[in-house]
Amino acid sequence: MAELVLSTLDQGVLTLTFNRPDTLNAWTDAMGRRYFDLLAQAEKDPEVRAVVVTGAGKGFCSGADFKTLTAIQTGSYDEEPDPRPNTFPTTIGKPIIAAVNGACAGLGMVHALVCDLVFTAEEAKWTTAFPRRGLIAEYGLSWVLPRVMGQQRAMDILLSGRVFTGREAYELGLANRAVPGESLLAQACEYARELAAHSSPASMAVIKRQVWHDWDTTLEESARTATQEMIASFGRPDFTEGVASFLERRPPNFPPL
Amino acid sequence: MAELVLSTLDQGVLTLTFNRPDTLNAWTDAMGRRYFDLLAQAEKDPEVRAVVVTGAGKGFCSGADFKTLTAIQTGSYDEEPDPRPNTFPTTIGKPIIAAVNGACAGLGMVHALVCDLVFTAEEAKWTTAFPRRGLIAEYGLSWVLPRVMGQQRAMDILLSGRVFTGREAYELGLANRAVPGESLLAQACEYARELAAHSSPASMAVIKRQVWHDWDTTLEESARTATQEMIASFGRPDFTEGVASFLERRPPNFPPL
Amino acid sequence: MAELVLSTLDQGVLTLTFNRPDTLNAWTDAMGRRYFDLLAQAEKDPEVRAVVVTGAGKGFCSGADFKTLTAIQTGSYDEEPDPRPNTFPTTIGKPIIAAVNGACAGLGMVHALVCDLVFTAEEAKWTTAFPRRGLIAEYGLSWVLPRVMGQQRAMDILLSGRVFTGREAYELGLANRAVPGESLLAQACEYARELAAHSSPASMAVIKRQVWHDWDTTLEESARTATQEMIASFGRPDFTEGVASFLERRPPNFPPL
Repeated sequence: MAELVLSTLDQGVLTLTFNRPDTLNAWTDAMGRRYFDLLAQAEKDPEVRAVVVTGAGKGFCSGADFKTLTAIQTGSYDEEPDPRPNTFPTTIGKPIIAAVNGACAGLGMVHALVCDLVFTAEEAKWTTAFPRRGLIAEYGLSWVLPRVMGQQRAMDILLSGRVFTGREAYELGLANRAVPGESLLAQACEYARELAAHSSPASMAVIKRQVWHDWDTTLEESARTATQEMIASFGRPDFTEGVASFLERRPPNFPPL
Repeated sequence: MAELVLSTLDQGVLTLTFNRPDTLNAWTDAMGRRYFDLLAQAEKDPEVRAVVVTGAGKGFCSGADFKTLTAIQTGSYDEEPDPRPNTFPTTIGKPIIAAVNGACAGLGMVHALVCDLVFTAEEAKWTTAFPRRGLIAEYGLSWVLPRVMGQQRAMDILLSGRVFTGREAYELGLANRAVPGESLLAQACEYARELAAHSSPASMAVIKRQVWHDWDTTLEESARTATQEMIASFGRPDFTEGVASFLERRPPNFPPL
Repeated sequence: MAELVLSTLDQGVLTLTFNRPDTLNAWTDAMGRRYFDLLAQAEKDPEVRAVVVTGAGKGFCSGADFKTLTAIQTGSYDEEPDPRPNTFPTTIGKPIIAAVNGACAGLGMVHALVCDLVFTAEEAKWTTAFPRRGLIAEYGLSWVLPRVMGQQRAMDILLSGRVFTGREAYELGLANRAVPGESLLAQACEYARELAAHSSPASMAVIKRQVWHDWDTTLEESARTATQEMIASFGRPDFTEGVASFLERRPPNFPPL
């Protein structure tokens, strides 16, 4: 099973690589289960401070495996689904950066967008694909996309299912960075290493939760919760170290989460 | 009455044209009633797969008719208002594309923005106008605009009521496309024909509803609803046809809504 | 106390200037109390139609004063906090424009972003700073930022705490305008004078409230509330004057709030 998703750790950055390259890393329950298991481990591993997710070969993730889709159509699908929803990565207390190296379609796009940041190869092909297969905006993508890129732009790519490049994904506000494919993974990992080196793990866990959840609250409640979180942060060694390292003009040495 | 809004159907695309060109298509209750009646018919018409809305002559819609406004001021206004709210187009289960060919002001801007996508002529003049007339952000525009273009940019154009071009509308994220005026309608219709040809009508109806409504829900609820919608989509002929046409590398032949 | 925030009024525009330049206008309770007192006065002052907020010297606001932070750490902090939350400016019924002339960090960024619009010097240095100090997204910034610039971009600057320029702030959608520093205040004041001259104070008060609050409501409720506000606006002299000045092609002469 382990080979379905490769895993390497370097300088606090865990790189997870979908590894079914002959299918452009089409999503199967088995690959998804392995991916989520590795994320759950990463959350507990004090060595991991940030996660980069990418794909082996030419694709990032080409969407749901067609064998699965046709099995659903013929009624012969009998795998036990993972109880963890596809939004599981949003609940992990460490930052996750999608490095979209190539084809990113349908369910693959869901998995890019439930990461916290998205870096993409300029030439990567993106598509929601759903309306062209008679499907709908799956697994919360109709919630995430308008909040990332604005409502009309989300309508464009969800209603049309058209193919667009990583360059356009960036111009549409759908990706934080678009870079040449050959430097994509290096740049995503460099960004992740910056997080690992300079950002407090405790801070990142709280901030990630705040940003995902504050869509469901009012400004007043958000500010009240933030005050409680701020007071809690005053009691953590991360605050002492954050202030000390700033005053001493040296890199911080934050404890693990 | 029919001449207040022109209607033509071609290759699955219904083009509706506000037709009071001597007033830059200023909005009257009669024109609005006719427009909404045509949208309601379009929803039931199996031939219609997408709708384009534009204006005759030099304007898209210059806002509320001044005779109406002055009648309101003098207390002599006595038309029976349409019970359908100005957000009615968001409830139609088919995609609606505004093709803003010229002046788009006040209530006209509301009607551009309650469409699902907006194409604009580069040289079209846009303005909310409201604060310059002593009015407020009408009919939900204070809800839609920040979700389309971001809060600060919405504050800019709502608080100032300043005039800006279609080119700037695009740069502000307020329009999906800005194109030379002479090719606007052709490009909007071409985009709509793509939807008609390649996107499942059932998928588009669900996706449109998802995007408009998922602002009111949490990510978790959105994902749960999407799972139910996905399962429903598995039972529709659109899914069978969507997968088959993809595997057979041919255009899909989806049933009407 | 008055010197902590400078105050000048010209042509309906009140300019407030944080005035602790030797600390890049680091935030203290005393400076904040003075700033909020001036905003509360501005709301009641019929001469004030728009507010511009900027910083004396090289910075806008460098964040919480470090003496305060270290006093909190050592438990020796004993100032009585202002009961008004840091989101207080959003409740003022007049438009507030931040003119970010230089360093804008941490709590300083909160105070730029709870203004209604943001103009920035191109070369100004911006940073959330929070995760680099072991802190969290303070005082509602995790609510505001995603609504201004989109979720992923907000994640980028909140999780990393990286420094970016005013030019990038504009490109990220975080500021309405980025201009050369030497013309910043002039351009912000010119924009504010346009509001003072052409926008109804009553309209601006309602629109500001609508935009800040309509994040918490549905489109249907927003449209319903807007109808009530519109009917109320029909009864105000601002509407009479707005229509009359338009028809007479002259500048409006709106009454104060």
